[in-house]
Amino acid sequence: MRALRLRQWKSEPELMEVPEPTPGTGEVVVRIGAAGACHSDLHLMDEFEPGSVPWNPPFTLGHENAGWVHAVGDGVTGLTIGQPVAVYGPWGCGTCARCRVGVDPYCENPAGAPVPGGGGGLGLDGGMAEYELVPDARHIVPLPDGLDPVEAAPLTDAGLTPYHAIRRSWPKLPPGSTAVVIGVGGLGHVGVQILKATTAARVIAVDTRAEALRLAQECGADQTVTSGPTAAEEIRAATGGRGADVVLDFVGADATLALGVAVARTVGDLTIVGIGGGTLPVSFFSVPYEVSIATTYWGSRPELIEVLELGAQGLIRPKTTTFALDDALDAYRQMREGTLEGRAVIVP
Amino acid sequence: MRALRLRQWKSEPELMEVPEPTPGTGEVVVRIGAAGACHSDLHLMDEFEPGSVPWNPPFTLGHENAGWVHAVGDGVTGLTIGQPVAVYGPWGCGTCARCRVGVDPYCENPAGAPVPGGGGGLGLDGGMAEYELVPDARHIVPLPDGLDPVEAAPLTDAGLTPYHAIRRSWPKLPPGSTAVVIGVGGLGHVGVQILKATTAARVIAVDTRAEALRLAQECGADQTVTSGPTAAEEIRAATGGRGADVVLDFVGADATLALGVAVARTVGDLTIVGIGGGTLPVSFFSVPYEVSIATTYWGSRPELIEVLELGAQGLIRPKTTTFALDDALDAYRQMREGTLEGRAVIVP
Amino acid sequence: MRALRLRQWKSEPELMEVPEPTPGTGEVVVRIGAAGACHSDLHLMDEFEPGSVPWNPPFTLGHENAGWVHAVGDGVTGLTIGQPVAVYGPWGCGTCARCRVGVDPYCENPAGAPVPGGGGGLGLDGGMAEYELVPDARHIVPLPDGLDPVEAAPLTDAGLTPYHAIRRSWPKLPPGSTAVVIGVGGLGHVGVQILKATTAARVIAVDTRAEALRLAQECGADQTVTSGPTAAEEIRAATGGRGADVVLDFVGADATLALGVAVARTVGDLTIVGIGGGTLPVSFFSVPYEVSIATTYWGSRPELIEVLELGAQGLIRPKTTTFALDDALDAYRQMREGTLEGRAVIVP
Amino acid sequence: MRALRLRQWKSEPELMEVPEPTPGTGEVVVRIGAAGACHSDLHLMDEFEPGSVPWNPPFTLGHENAGWVHAVGDGVTGLTIGQPVAVYGPWGCGTCARCRVGVDPYCENPAGAPVPGGGGGLGLDGGMAEYELVPDARHIVPLPDGLDPVEAAPLTDAGLTPYHAIRRSWPKLPPGSTAVVIGVGGLGHVGVQILKATTAARVIAVDTRAEALRLAQECGADQTVTSGPTAAEEIRAATGGRGADVVLDFVGADATLALGVAVARTVGDLTIVGIGGGTLPVSFFSVPYEVSIATTYWGSRPELIEVLELGAQGLIRPKTTTFALDDALDAYRQMREGTLEGRAVIVP
Repeated sequence: MRALRLRQWKSEPELMEVPEPTPGTGEVVVRIGAAGACHSDLHLMDEFEPGSVPWNPPFTLGHENAGWVHAVGDGVTGLTIGQPVAVYGPWGCGTCARCRVGVDPYCENPAGAPVPGGGGGLGLDGGMAEYELVPDARHIVPLPDGLDPVEAAPLTDAGLTPYHAIRRSWPKLPPGSTAVVIGVGGLGHVGVQILKATTAARVIAVDTRAEALRLAQECGADQTVTSGPTAAEEIRAATGGRGADVVLDFVGADATLALGVAVARTVGDLTIVGIGGGTLPVSFFSVPYEVSIATTYWGSRPELIEVLELGAQGLIRPKTTTFALDDALDAYRQMREGTLEGRAVIVP
Repeated sequence: MRALRLRQWKSEPELMEVPEPTPGTGEVVVRIGAAGACHSDLHLMDEFEPGSVPWNPPFTLGHENAGWVHAVGDGVTGLTIGQPVAVYGPWGCGTCARCRVGVDPYCENPAGAPVPGGGGGLGLDGGMAEYELVPDARHIVPLPDGLDPVEAAPLTDAGLTPYHAIRRSWPKLPPGSTAVVIGVGGLGHVGVQILKATTAARVIAVDTRAEALRLAQECGADQTVTSGPTAAEEIRAATGGRGADVVLDFVGADATLALGVAVARTVGDLTIVGIGGGTLPVSFFSVPYEVSIATTYWGSRPELIEVLELGAQGLIRPKTTTFALDDALDAYRQMREGTLEGRAVIVP
Repeated sequence: MRALRLRQWKSEPELMEVPEPTPGTGEVVVRIGAAGACHSDLHLMDEFEPGSVPWNPPFTLGHENAGWVHAVGDGVTGLTIGQPVAVYGPWGCGTCARCRVGVDPYCENPAGAPVPGGGGGLGLDGGMAEYELVPDARHIVPLPDGLDPVEAAPLTDAGLTPYHAIRRSWPKLPPGSTAVVIGVGGLGHVGVQILKATTAARVIAVDTRAEALRLAQECGADQTVTSGPTAAEEIRAATGGRGADVVLDFVGADATLALGVAVARTVGDLTIVGIGGGTLPVSFFSVPYEVSIATTYWGSRPELIEVLELGAQGLIRPKTTTFALDDALDAYRQMREGTLEGRAVIVP
Repeated sequence: MRALRLRQWKSEPELMEVPEPTPGTGEVVVRIGAAGACHSDLHLMDEFEPGSVPWNPPFTLGHENAGWVHAVGDGVTGLTIGQPVAVYGPWGCGTCARCRVGVDPYCENPAGAPVPGGGGGLGLDGGMAEYELVPDARHIVPLPDGLDPVEAAPLTDAGLTPYHAIRRSWPKLPPGSTAVVIGVGGLGHVGVQILKATTAARVIAVDTRAEALRLAQECGADQTVTSGPTAAEEIRAATGGRGADVVLDFVGADATLALGVAVARTVGDLTIVGIGGGTLPVSFFSVPYEVSIATTYWGSRPELIEVLELGAQGLIRPKTTTFALDDALDAYRQMREGTLEGRAVIVP
């Protein structure tokens, strides 16, 4: 079968022929229906080097995957050949306290995982191929009625990551509260949709780009604010001076983190999702009292089920552009150039 | 001024002239903009007798009130004459652990309240008059922009009561969950709106009346089920056999409580809001494991603020019919006859 | 090997020779160090008949088990032969939403479980034998340092069941709150210990028997109350009239359930753990507002880890009497006669 | 009456004669039984200058106060002259969303407070005098039986502040979890007691001083670690490599904050209570995933009731040394010199 593989750090991936996988005990092979192309893949190709992460090329790209069960190994029960499924992407050890409840991204025994701190498309072969080998049946999540693999694939990361970040803040988002979404890109625009679907909070979206703010409005944002020197003041004013109960920073740069603190309400949440390389200096007097500042990374398996449900109900719909496997490099090129509209989904 | 007063148990209220109230220390007089007529008022007129409740007539009816600040007593700060406000209806002692955090309906020192277990329109003079005396400024809640007293008045009970019942269940209503609303009347139809506005749960509405089910659909219910012998089976089927995560019984009759248990999912909530006189026999084997069965009564002051916010955003809109104070008895007559559409709101 | 087997309903179990088990794929054989004898076993022997539960004899008794890993099947990782372990007793399907997070007692696909609604000693062969076959490695929980199998075995049910019941109520048990434990038997006395170890709530223990109340005091109860006509009044008085924030009924008879409601505080919890056959009539006016009435059954795998930790720290110590496998029938005899002190633990 | 007053910034307080206060509408005068001397008072005397805080001298010191109701103003109900009470110290506006539920330290309308961001002893006259004027009866908290003013006074800050910080972390402190207390001074040693009284978590105390670690052990710490280059490694080792579920930093210096991050477990809490002037640089990669970093300040009125209850039960007992009002300056001198054992309590 053909697969788009990263062969070494700081190189372009290559479309090449590889053997079809066969499932061992407890494993599942998924025929790929769609594989999302993520901005983090560009980091893999362009910036990572030996030591950046605890795994190395070569491997097939694609960590946002959905398709149909193709073959199952010994001991796998409850799955039917041909059944449409999503692949839960972060693959932990399976036996630590986190993995036991489906929170693989926070696996506490990475040495026991198929690859430490990674998964399919991140150190192991991913979904930009005709088939993907999934090393444990627990990573397979059946698709709800009404959701096809092309819609489902980007939800496994671009949906699940903002969902997890938002879900931790639900108790702080009753009617009358305000959530600020900084950065309306691949994850942020889904974040706006998730906030509107699951809470009655008012949503203020912030971005530098007018088209991103238009997208935020389409996604349901109640107000949009252009990044810049007056942004904090506009947001404070929009909240009656109190500040935002929840700030979700999908950028993670120095400036966005500083904006987040400037607009946060006491006892609020400031959640850092974006890997923008920024640093926030936190001291007793620099941050409103009891604002909970935390990073989040990806999400849990039970949460993925909830995200797919939101997708099946039409409550969240990532913007996507589909590409054939042959054109996958085009997708990444457009992402680099910033000309891609929405999330690129590779359909093998 | 004129006021609609209940002069004794088991009698019709009378519209009569009474002195205008003046506020003492810490008190507020509200010029009434609207006063909701509640089904529970019919119980007051028709069924109650000495000993039914810890208070007695005469008093002015009306426990769902909104209007404008008319006069304030000594020591009242932060209110402006003419400011539009809602009146928080349950009036507790103000100093017990419940009242201190605004949960007056569960006041633990009713002997210290203005009237034990009551409030304006429930033992004390209520809002079916030109002015209402509110005995403590903490019961005054400013209206958010965009909400007028006619819209606000019914929210103080017909909005607040289902809101409180639903809010306790939010943690059990993630995407993919199901909420069942039994009884789509004055409270139930707002309950459907609240569920849709604050969660992504699927909502199944149950009633005996086709027009109530149509109203449920208008309010956003995902599915409607006619009460009857197959209702439980239909709801189980609609939840993939698992049952409903949350059941809200706005009727509270034997049959509806039995239906609630029959369709509840393990670890779900069954909340009894309706005062239908029913009894549910609970034993270890008669109820799915760990279903939390509880009554709820009215709601808290902080919750009223959230409900008004939902109203201001247009996310909940009780159906109402307005009546002049002169026609208030007509309103009650129509309620008795079942010909009233939505909630009756008296506009003095 | 020898095993104590129930051969048919309404019969005495028999000690007999059976083949040693060998583990298949994903399975584990545990060399039994201790197997608790539970009162529910008496129900199995004396009362159950075809149709009572979804499984039938013959099977080896014993659903509270601990010992050492003896052999593992293909695909089992992370366990070492000889390692001391407890066996998590409720065995669900492993793939439903409940089982995925280790809440097997509330498995939503019992048809997919090794036996529907049961486990080892409950339809399948349990631990009253030299070895037990555990059908999935996820049911194996390593023992923490300082806890041996004889101490651990009863914790898997007599510890886990009250722990789960209490854990749901932690948010209602801050300093100044009161928990009432009704029934200071095999589970109740551990319940008192758990409450004292994990909260600062005051604990009031209720029983008919003076020696049970003495045991409650040894376990840390702050006050004891003898069941009877004045019990409710005494408890109300001890709580300043407000009532108990949490009531745990380890009996579950009509009288204890009625006592529970009579002493519960508004917004409290009344948790029914005991299978005493009682029924509580619940109506809007018969129960304090918003008391959450729920049954609980056994507990989750993550909770078992926490219970074992409490045991290892010496914070909970079930009273036990050990018996050789040859004397297991004596243990049950003493339980029937009520002469057994503490929990019987069979040590093969 | 005599009062210890700060007359201007950067000066020693002076014991001088002032008029006895009389209560206005809604106000209460408390006869002081005890007033705690807090390290923050030294900052007031030594470091603050105009603009440091939104209030200025002169005022009477003492923000940890307890005594007996001496006189009440118009409209005050429910208090008895001579009744022993504690004074809730942070005085907010009383009408914002925070103050309405007793969370005055996070008042959102400080301009409406008696003094913005302060209270008695912090801009207004405090308790180092024979009488204190409390501007709103809601700040009066009756003492539970068994607690006298000398024991109660330090609990209003040195008890309440760590209690609030710990209470936010209860859900993360089940059996098997670990809490790290950095800095075993006036607040930290009470923090250790609170953790032991309200959870079954293991407590590791960290300090530079051997006597502080001894105090931690007396207070119930399970393990003590001397600050220094190996501290992080020791704590990691003590938690099986996973890290501490909760870190409470009662120092707040650069080094302690860095230690906190180094030992925190994913999804844990790092709470900054100490005002040590340190800064923690937070970035996506510098902090374990989803550790919630937050400052906390003082606590709520409902929490003060819980703290007093812990004191009445003997579960927390701050170390104290009592001084007559004449010797109050001695108390501060000893605090400056570091020779004071425990908390200084002034007994007028």
